[in-house]
Amino acid sequence: MNNPHIVILGAGYGGIMTAVKLQKSIGMNEADITLVNMNDYHYQTTWLHENAAGTLHQDRTRISIKEVVNLNRVRFVQDKVISIKPDAKKVKLSNNELNYDVLVIGLGFEAATFGIPGLEEHAFTIGDINSARLIREHLEYNFALYHNEEPNNQARINIVVGGGGFTGVEFLGEIANRVPELCEEYDIDKHLVRIINIEGSPTVLPGFDPQLVEYAMNSLESRGVEFVTGAMLKECTPDKVTYEKDGRLVEIPTMTTIWAAGVKANSIVEKSGFSTNRGKVEVRKDMRTPDYDDVFVIGDCALIMDPETGRPFPPTAQIAIQQSGTVAHNVKAYINGGDLEEFTPKLLGTIASLGHNDGIAVLFNQYKLFGWKATFMKKMSDNRYLLKLGGPGLLMKKGKFNIFY
Amino acid sequence: MNNPHIVILGAGYGGIMTAVKLQKSIGMNEADITLVNMNDYHYQTTWLHENAAGTLHQDRTRISIKEVVNLNRVRFVQDKVISIKPDAKKVKLSNNELNYDVLVIGLGFEAATFGIPGLEEHAFTIGDINSARLIREHLEYNFALYHNEEPNNQARINIVVGGGGFTGVEFLGEIANRVPELCEEYDIDKHLVRIINIEGSPTVLPGFDPQLVEYAMNSLESRGVEFVTGAMLKECTPDKVTYEKDGRLVEIPTMTTIWAAGVKANSIVEKSGFSTNRGKVEVRKDMRTPDYDDVFVIGDCALIMDPETGRPFPPTAQIAIQQSGTVAHNVKAYINGGDLEEFTPKLLGTIASLGHNDGIAVLFNQYKLFGWKATFMKKMSDNRYLLKLGGPGLLMKKGKFNIFY
Repeated sequence: MNNPHIVILGAGYGGIMTAVKLQKSIGMNEADITLVNMNDYHYQTTWLHENAAGTLHQDRTRISIKEVVNLNRVRFVQDKVISIKPDAKKVKLSNNELNYDVLVIGLGFEAATFGIPGLEEHAFTIGDINSARLIREHLEYNFALYHNEEPNNQARINIVVGGGGFTGVEFLGEIANRVPELCEEYDIDKHLVRIINIEGSPTVLPGFDPQLVEYAMNSLESRGVEFVTGAMLKECTPDKVTYEKDGRLVEIPTMTTIWAAGVKANSIVEKSGFSTNRGKVEVRKDMRTPDYDDVFVIGDCALIMDPETGRPFPPTAQIAIQQSGTVAHNVKAYINGGDLEEFTPKLLGTIASLGHNDGIAVLFNQYKLFGWKATFMKKMSDNRYLLKLGGPGLLMKKGKFNIFY
Repeated sequence: MNNPHIVILGAGYGGIMTAVKLQKSIGMNEADITLVNMNDYHYQTTWLHENAAGTLHQDRTRISIKEVVNLNRVRFVQDKVISIKPDAKKVKLSNNELNYDVLVIGLGFEAATFGIPGLEEHAFTIGDINSARLIREHLEYNFALYHNEEPNNQARINIVVGGGGFTGVEFLGEIANRVPELCEEYDIDKHLVRIINIEGSPTVLPGFDPQLVEYAMNSLESRGVEFVTGAMLKECTPDKVTYEKDGRLVEIPTMTTIWAAGVKANSIVEKSGFSTNRGKVEVRKDMRTPDYDDVFVIGDCALIMDPETGRPFPPTAQIAIQQSGTVAHNVKAYINGGDLEEFTPKLLGTIASLGHNDGIAVLFNQYKLFGWKATFMKKMSDNRYLLKLGGPGLLMKKGKFNIFY
């Protein structure tokens, strides 16, 4: 008889950690494991804003699959997932089709633009290595063009960030550090450059501790960031954005709009016929879909309600990594006929970086941290993940040891 | 009585060397000297192809005016020359107007596109620091876009160089070295990238020693450059070029066309009413215009016929630098009533770089050099210029000491 076939879709935080855990816990004769991913690398989604701003090279952010996955134990297929057919237990790829006995869906997020005109076509999103690298180059290209046009075009050096949530604020922190370097490189007076954040809520980082929000805004404003809160993006064209505030429409000339205000689950999940809630699968406590016993969902495609707030837990790396423990355990139990365990999120805290050596954090829902202490915690948390994923070798290679910088 | 006023227009090779020589030879009470330049820096035009390819940073190529010009002795005006009125002895600048007693015109070259449709709008030229930097960024931007579009667009990674003369071939040498680095950075298979040179003559480097031309073509072809000789560029659009060869039209999809096939003298000279020949002033033997005793022309705007060939001497840095000696001497003599000397070009040789450590050279019209020996000579010649311009300090700062690389 053939081994049961475990297929993992996506090598993001949830998918790759599940693969790494299963390759240790499942014996050669117990099951075959296949990991499917578009790229031959995993990347730290939470570092992409640094790649996009140009403050960290993308090769620091990505990790070759073969560096952390044992290819003798896990078969790796580099391909794009097109659809899942859960009734037939099949996955359709661009160049292939796979049969599975157990499926783990870790397909991550895609940008949600809420139908705002022009956003999908003309705004950038910080979604993956390619798009982050493109933002960096787009910025440099437009700064380079500035002195090649007469009259100089202010739209080339106005940077608009849509959304003042986590990703938006972290990108603002990096770009505020990067702009003086860009100005030096392209002979542009740095006071001419505008960095504008547009946020729909009355404040950035809505829901965050007000003292920390104030700290973050002060830090960013001192580096030239302008905040426009309570404002809704209305339209994005190649050379401007329009927002509405207090019933009035305002235009900003810009060729660089970074849309950091919305993500949704990979649309393949919904299209493949799983029952979804806001595009996500509201998983059972053991991380399986409501309808299929042999399909687990992990990370951004999974929806788990927080009973305390009545709202879903946010789709964070932290939770995806935690889920991988439960999913790996349950996949093994499902194959061997053991008991499946329940997933319980452990919210350790939230840390937002505001650039090289500045940040804010709330730990264990009570301790507040400012400045370099917050970035220290963030770097330690990133380093801990690298250690879990690839051991000391990977930590030494990709870790963040620039503690005081 | 006021001192006579010497005005030098342009801080290229000819202009800045004239200023540097005059500040040493002319006493404080003998004359006032003003140097006018658009930028507050001088740059090595002959290094721009390296900046454009991205193999040398532009800050290595440019030299702050104040580093080599004594601002107590020479008044520096950063402004753009609009026109010259030789009868009124005036120069009109964007923000100012200057009166002169003696004028030195060293306004350099601009691109000549010979009316080929679309070239002026859509092709890049390697003209100054801004345009060189823009080419570098344009290339990186298009390579970055490659993996953000489906299907991938070959036009983004086809690089067309129009013209196989000196600038074209030197740029090809650099870009051939740069492409593998770009491919590494943006995850592109380097065999997909095309570098195509289009030259109207039956061979590149027309007029050059055939053995050296063959060496150059072999070196570049081994690094992936495709030569299309005997072909005329017909049109350039944002995403393709069309050339004609053997009566047939051929299209190449490309977003990057570098036009390196034609330069002409700065058009201000012709527009200001000087008698010109192909846009240049055919200067007297003492480097003055035929019509005005108080106006000297130096560098690319000056035309000097080679009696041996019956054709003009080529507009090279070498000749402009040599001319500065004669012009500085003659400006001083003109003011003091001394004898003006004649300019005689001393053609030391021609060296074309083919990338980091490859090149070809003809010295004293007889010695041929290949490979690193040619680049060695070129670097030594560049270093000699830096020494003349700014002394040992400038040489140490900007010199090329990577002899074997």
